[in-house]
Amino acid sequence: MYTDLWLGKKKENSGAVVTSDERIPTSGITENAISELSSAPVLEGYKVHLLIREGEVDAEGYCITSDRKYIELKAGSERGLIYGAFRLINLKRLDPENEINLKEEPKNRLRMLNHWDNMDGSIERGYSGNSFFFEKNELVINERTRDYARLLCSLGYNGVVINNVNVKDEACRLIDRKHLGKVGELSALFASYGIRLYLSLNFAAPIEDALTGSADPLDERVIGWWERKFDEVYKAVPDLGGFLVKADSEGRPGPFTYGRNQAEGANMLARAIKPHGGIIIWRCFVYNCTQDWRDLKTDRARSAYDYFHDLNGQFDDNVILQIKNGPMDFQVREPVSPLFGRMPDTNQMIEFQIAQEYTGQQRHVCYLIPWFKEVLEFDTHVKGEGSRVKDVVSGKLFNYSLSGMCAVTNTGNDLNWTGHDLAAANLYGFGRLSFDPGLSAEDIALEWIKLTFGNNEKVVSNILKILMMSWRAYEKYTSPLGIGWMVVPSVHYGPDPDGYEYSRWGTYHKATCREIGVERNSEGTGFSALYAEPLASLYEKPETTPEELLLFFHRMPYDHVLSSGKTIIQHIYDTHFEGAEEVGEMAALWDELKGLIDPEAFLRVSKRFAHQKEHSKEWRDVINSYFYRKTLIEDEKGRELY
Amino acid sequence: MYTDLWLGKKKENSGAVVTSDERIPTSGITENAISELSSAPVLEGYKVHLLIREGEVDAEGYCITSDRKYIELKAGSERGLIYGAFRLINLKRLDPENEINLKEEPKNRLRMLNHWDNMDGSIERGYSGNSFFFEKNELVINERTRDYARLLCSLGYNGVVINNVNVKDEACRLIDRKHLGKVGELSALFASYGIRLYLSLNFAAPIEDALTGSADPLDERVIGWWERKFDEVYKAVPDLGGFLVKADSEGRPGPFTYGRNQAEGANMLARAIKPHGGIIIWRCFVYNCTQDWRDLKTDRARSAYDYFHDLNGQFDDNVILQIKNGPMDFQVREPVSPLFGRMPDTNQMIEFQIAQEYTGQQRHVCYLIPWFKEVLEFDTHVKGEGSRVKDVVSGKLFNYSLSGMCAVTNTGNDLNWTGHDLAAANLYGFGRLSFDPGLSAEDIALEWIKLTFGNNEKVVSNILKILMMSWRAYEKYTSPLGIGWMVVPSVHYGPDPDGYEYSRWGTYHKATCREIGVERNSEGTGFSALYAEPLASLYEKPETTPEELLLFFHRMPYDHVLSSGKTIIQHIYDTHFEGAEEVGEMAALWDELKGLIDPEAFLRVSKRFAHQKEHSKEWRDVINSYFYRKTLIEDEKGRELY
Repeated sequence: MYTDLWLGKKKENSGAVVTSDERIPTSGITENAISELSSAPVLEGYKVHLLIREGEVDAEGYCITSDRKYIELKAGSERGLIYGAFRLINLKRLDPENEINLKEEPKNRLRMLNHWDNMDGSIERGYSGNSFFFEKNELVINERTRDYARLLCSLGYNGVVINNVNVKDEACRLIDRKHLGKVGELSALFASYGIRLYLSLNFAAPIEDALTGSADPLDERVIGWWERKFDEVYKAVPDLGGFLVKADSEGRPGPFTYGRNQAEGANMLARAIKPHGGIIIWRCFVYNCTQDWRDLKTDRARSAYDYFHDLNGQFDDNVILQIKNGPMDFQVREPVSPLFGRMPDTNQMIEFQIAQEYTGQQRHVCYLIPWFKEVLEFDTHVKGEGSRVKDVVSGKLFNYSLSGMCAVTNTGNDLNWTGHDLAAANLYGFGRLSFDPGLSAEDIALEWIKLTFGNNEKVVSNILKILMMSWRAYEKYTSPLGIGWMVVPSVHYGPDPDGYEYSRWGTYHKATCREIGVERNSEGTGFSALYAEPLASLYEKPETTPEELLLFFHRMPYDHVLSSGKTIIQHIYDTHFEGAEEVGEMAALWDELKGLIDPEAFLRVSKRFAHQKEHSKEWRDVINSYFYRKTLIEDEKGRELY
Repeated sequence: MYTDLWLGKKKENSGAVVTSDERIPTSGITENAISELSSAPVLEGYKVHLLIREGEVDAEGYCITSDRKYIELKAGSERGLIYGAFRLINLKRLDPENEINLKEEPKNRLRMLNHWDNMDGSIERGYSGNSFFFEKNELVINERTRDYARLLCSLGYNGVVINNVNVKDEACRLIDRKHLGKVGELSALFASYGIRLYLSLNFAAPIEDALTGSADPLDERVIGWWERKFDEVYKAVPDLGGFLVKADSEGRPGPFTYGRNQAEGANMLARAIKPHGGIIIWRCFVYNCTQDWRDLKTDRARSAYDYFHDLNGQFDDNVILQIKNGPMDFQVREPVSPLFGRMPDTNQMIEFQIAQEYTGQQRHVCYLIPWFKEVLEFDTHVKGEGSRVKDVVSGKLFNYSLSGMCAVTNTGNDLNWTGHDLAAANLYGFGRLSFDPGLSAEDIALEWIKLTFGNNEKVVSNILKILMMSWRAYEKYTSPLGIGWMVVPSVHYGPDPDGYEYSRWGTYHKATCREIGVERNSEGTGFSALYAEPLASLYEKPETTPEELLLFFHRMPYDHVLSSGKTIIQHIYDTHFEGAEEVGEMAALWDELKGLIDPEAFLRVSKRFAHQKEHSKEWRDVINSYFYRKTLIEDEKGRELY
């Protein structure tokens, strides 16, 4: 039942007869759009007329109108044309009888994936095989690369950063002549599907040049070095979107080394790249990663805010700050970063992670779109009620010159792209969501299921149930009430309640036999005060803090009674038993699909469910035993604890 | 002040004039002995007469008599001659005025080192560089190899296993024609210093042979395969001592796979190797390493005893069981393995570890000889009072046909052989101890210090203090009262109190807010009953269990009062503060030696002390905080806990 949309080759001459307005340029993008339409079986017998009307529609938007024989696809540019072509095919595949009359324009200017691929072929936090961009320190361009460009275009993405933000080893030479030819070739391929290529950049690169020997952003030699470097890069890769930079973070070099601030670092690059039309995406993931665990005052949660907030307005307009959704690091549950909307005069975009680093590493099913929706719909109140994160990062709230959403991708060279077949829903979902954050997680899931597994009612219904319950189930059997970080260090897989407790990463829960959590209100680290009112006041007190984040914001005794009437400790026991049970339910729902879907896909997912069932029990028992041993408070329901 | 004994080249013609009894064979051993004597500066002006008198002296023993000009060195064989030559040189170096009149014979027939070197050059649990035996999957023989043979001979060792007990990758082919030539060459080199070479063996090797396809020890094809293989090996390596086998352990293949017991596995190999005079050293480190941490009944401490005890008398006489000193795995403190002396009709030897896997990894100073002495002097009572471990493993107690001591070595290709300069005391000490377990840890240390750093009184006195306090200091700031295993999993370095708590290794403390430990008496796992009386009865009750092992044998509440009048929790706090303070004292003692010893050695050790001071505080604070958070019992002395 696997569709040919993502994996297969194009069928020849089995789709629409395509005509086009004579003003349409016959560049690669249009050719690719025509090729998709004319080979889509679902469009057989249709005549499709393409036309471009700049100004009538957004450059990446489209209008589709159809009757039983004739379809008109009107776009704002060639890029809109190819997004529209894929959308048209998907709509017809979802319902061949559907008469279409719609106008869709992307809400976010940047809709990106970040690859953490290394040039040796490994992927940092990759759970679906090795890189398909790099092998043995060389770039790879083959049929799969084209498939990937098609895939991303069909989901609405318009940008991809191909190398790891931790730029090391051979990747330091990715912007040298040695590799630029191939980068240019790759960039042109992606551009022919409307997608811009970006690279991650090593801020310290000019140090290695003997005549420069510095990376000080205010040093003329350094500025000159980057200007020459960008000239060289853009000569070879004229389509390049720009660069992503992780500076002054987790051992990466940055402007702090030279006593410069983050804006001075980013603007130096931005000015050098500006003549070429490129942008600088500057990550805000800056924190002290050599913290003393004995230190009770420093709060990692504050760091992005503390380092960046006061620089509002100091960044150039071709710089955009890339801010992780939460203040920590992609935990299964975190508050929304307090930095969103707090820099009205500086471009901001949001960074999510669909690579399931902390959420089951694509061995557990965890459909993340409901979680992302909660974040995007979150009301920051920065401009009064209704100042939602989605409107901050789309640029709507402050009229940013750049704005958008990106995700650390979950793709690799596994045949099914994402390791776990159901993890593809996150890749699909994030693309759709970045195009239109207003879509519901459920509607996105429905689309993905039907396009992937077909329209069988049981198939659709069961997989929808699985997807929609998966994230909360994962949250239940892992770390409770927003505490996070109870994972095995480094690998971030499997339970280790004290794993990050005595280490340098600033991620502590400080559980004793009586209480747990770091107090982050005004009597604690002051983190809660970083939010706009009324949030700051709500987070100040346990009673008004959302319970799913209670232990993130407050240090609480285990016998504190929640709104459910349960104590915290009983809540921990109950949710952990429930979560593991829910995995059993999900696995049973999947089992019912035997014979109804592609047998190989069925088997692959079944095997992963078998592991998830065992592993969720391991999580349940370790976390519950940890708290039981700490407190010796018995489970009210008398279940076995160890 | 470094001496030429270990590291340097031999000086030409600067030592004794050597004459020898005409009956002495002029083989390589004798030549090497003569070369050492005639180039030892300390023997300049002496005439040394060598003679061999079989029967008068043990084959590896010697008598030395000296006056002011003339020295007689009489040995039981050529091997005795070279051990005697080195001993003579050392005695003269320790005190040039010393008139010597002694007879020394080794108490242990086997005095071995086990290398855990892999053929790719890495060393499992190696903390002093890479292997000097292997590089890039080839054997290495160079000047350093000869230095190592000299070194081991000068310390009294007579056997060395060159490859890791976990035989994998290229090491599986070490007994193939490809490598046997080099093995033979290496073996001959070591033999010329009286040392026999041994290899570790992969029990499953015959499976890979298409015509055999099995490793069942009772299968005629398998037996034939090994007979042919040993024929081939001994043709190329006639001096080979035999093989060390890790079977049915931590994923290694073994006889259990075929429903055979350990004796059937070992004897099959022993019979095949017997015609060549080789021996099979069979490790007793067999346990369930996929235990469920929820399982309260299985006790890893019992496993060697349970698997081997009932096989007493069933092993051939060219098999020897190699038993780790304790029932677990080289912790800083464990009880003595209950298996020692419990198999009167089966050869037993003891395995120690001077590679400091769990004792500071040669970044912390930890002179282990006092600990080994405690083990060797331990009275097993198996044949009534006075049945000491040293007399079990020397074969004295039961007249074993094979007996001895071995240690997992701490050597690598670091210039100083052992990474930490002071770790060389363990290499020296273990050699001396295996030659004569009756020596005191202090006397051995004194010898080593003087031979290494010279006779300066302050140097000798300070280093002696450092060495003699180092092991107990390490014990104090790491895991308390015999509990063990509070280390970071896998790497085994640094504190992680719950690191092994929820894993598959059978090493649990099950600490709650009230008590800690696994009960191992008759009401618990029954481990204490495996010892002979009166030990079994003593270990049965907390009151009669040695306090340093209290938490190994018993589950105890933190408020239990020890003989010191302190509660367990206060004892934990106190020892951890003391241990870290003692590191400061050791470092201060070392600092006083500035200018009195070789400046490079001084600096190397100083750097390691700087790390040890910080790291011992980390240990102190993590362990104390762990227990403080568990109990919220304050330190009586009001020191800061976190």
